[in-house]
Amino acid sequence: MHILVLAPPSYHRNWKNAFDRLASQHQLYSSVEEALPHAAAIEVILLWKQDRGSLHHFPNVKVYYSMGAGVDHILSDPSRLLNIPICRVVDPYMANDMGNFLVMAVLNYHRRFYEILENQRQKHWDHVNLPNIPVRIGIMGMGHLGQAIGQKLHQLQFPVFGFSQKPKTDLPYPCYSSAHLEEFLAQINVLLLLLPATPATVGWLNRDFFQKCSPGTYLINVARGPLVVTSDLIQAVDSGQLSGALLDVFPQEPLPAESPLWTHPKIQVTPHIASITAPETAAEQIFKNLEAWVKGSPLAYQIDPYKGY
Amino acid sequence: MHILVLAPPSYHRNWKNAFDRLASQHQLYSSVEEALPHAAAIEVILLWKQDRGSLHHFPNVKVYYSMGAGVDHILSDPSRLLNIPICRVVDPYMANDMGNFLVMAVLNYHRRFYEILENQRQKHWDHVNLPNIPVRIGIMGMGHLGQAIGQKLHQLQFPVFGFSQKPKTDLPYPCYSSAHLEEFLAQINVLLLLLPATPATVGWLNRDFFQKCSPGTYLINVARGPLVVTSDLIQAVDSGQLSGALLDVFPQEPLPAESPLWTHPKIQVTPHIASITAPETAAEQIFKNLEAWVKGSPLAYQIDPYKGY
Repeated sequence: MHILVLAPPSYHRNWKNAFDRLASQHQLYSSVEEALPHAAAIEVILLWKQDRGSLHHFPNVKVYYSMGAGVDHILSDPSRLLNIPICRVVDPYMANDMGNFLVMAVLNYHRRFYEILENQRQKHWDHVNLPNIPVRIGIMGMGHLGQAIGQKLHQLQFPVFGFSQKPKTDLPYPCYSSAHLEEFLAQINVLLLLLPATPATVGWLNRDFFQKCSPGTYLINVARGPLVVTSDLIQAVDSGQLSGALLDVFPQEPLPAESPLWTHPKIQVTPHIASITAPETAAEQIFKNLEAWVKGSPLAYQIDPYKGY
Repeated sequence: MHILVLAPPSYHRNWKNAFDRLASQHQLYSSVEEALPHAAAIEVILLWKQDRGSLHHFPNVKVYYSMGAGVDHILSDPSRLLNIPICRVVDPYMANDMGNFLVMAVLNYHRRFYEILENQRQKHWDHVNLPNIPVRIGIMGMGHLGQAIGQKLHQLQFPVFGFSQKPKTDLPYPCYSSAHLEEFLAQINVLLLLLPATPATVGWLNRDFFQKCSPGTYLINVARGPLVVTSDLIQAVDSGQLSGALLDVFPQEPLPAESPLWTHPKIQVTPHIASITAPETAAEQIFKNLEAWVKGSPLAYQIDPYKGY
């Protein structure tokens, strides 16, 4: 196959070993410039945070393939050809990895670990005034990742509540459907965002939304930056409506130096590392899928472009 | 029953509601001075971090009862009468609480969260240079707490290795007996201490011990401060033999302001909060046990004073 890989340089470096091992019988191109002379031959484009606007150069492409779990970088590229299947990586390690990150984020809040670290900086021993914060955890987005994470938190004996478009009944904890957002938010005081970025979800977490939250709710966003209206979030934290937030994703990444999020005392900023796709396992899944497809099998891990996930 | 409670003032405050609810039919005394006029009547002494040296005033005591999981504050009190049964609290919430604290401590190390928080302070977005540290977790001390914690970490898909005096075979991960310390230490790079403080364990983690560890081992001590020789620990971290430590317990508590641990960049100091005994559940267990014993049942939750746990 002739495969074009469009990704930032750091990704090319990280995936190189996996490509060397798994893609030796294919023809790989690592930039638009390099691929242009062979544009008509390109059948597959692997994509991660590519510069938008070059996809129309490759008219015979048969698959757009995201190198991660998200596909909004593909759906939002105005140069993509419509009606081309879009695949994404469904990495079992990713669910474990992101799940463990969320467990860490929940526990650091629950156990007041930020305050304890600040006390260490002050050489202040406070044994009695930092009782655990009782947490009731809501998960918005109950797909593959959301369910894996719900299971982990449930096993750790935390009260867990799901929220998903379609009601789910086969879970060992309650799950609310989208008609019952306010009931869901009333149940919880820690909110984990695992929603895809779609026209329906971008900007959903705004001033109105935060007013529906239980006072003192803590927000953790490891999904997509544009789900949250940053200025409304800061206002909600400053007013006490929210008690704080851990944000791993942002509308613009890297987070600009002038963002007030960097220095907000109640907001933790992490650099989009909740789940780092492991190149080895992801590449293995991608090439196994493509090679079976070339031999006639249906293409697995496709998303529905109308739903956006 | 006539019951004397010897504990710091903050404990008296925290346990007051539980005592009001559960001990109304008993006579409670909250200091040696208050109890002295009734010394001969005192049958039970509840103890937590009491001032040493007053226990000989109460010659008819029939039970010393620790208000927490540890009993070294009782065993090390030179004024205690020998051959008096010693009980301790075995709180199921305590195992969950301490387990969750250890999960947090392991994840913060595994995910390099201290470096990420430092990057936030520097407004530095580093997405690529902080890969997860692969962890292989060893647990020294496989009693009630150790096994509960092993199960949590095993469920989170971490490699877990136990170490206990008696070999244990009914666990879903390997467990080494005390004859195989070096093999155990060679397997692991994160060491969780859950040992009691006994003559055999105090000072065990010294220079010699650290030299047997795999280079770069990270130490987490939530058990008892005197297990670890602080100056040897600092030297081992400074030399790189250990990669760092999280310490929740110390030979002297509160940790003195002049301790170099407070400011060591690779050591996290937490103020003995890995597990905070919940007064409600602990008091319920204590009074249920004592009231059944008064009616003739054997006294539960006794420790063996020769083993020290």
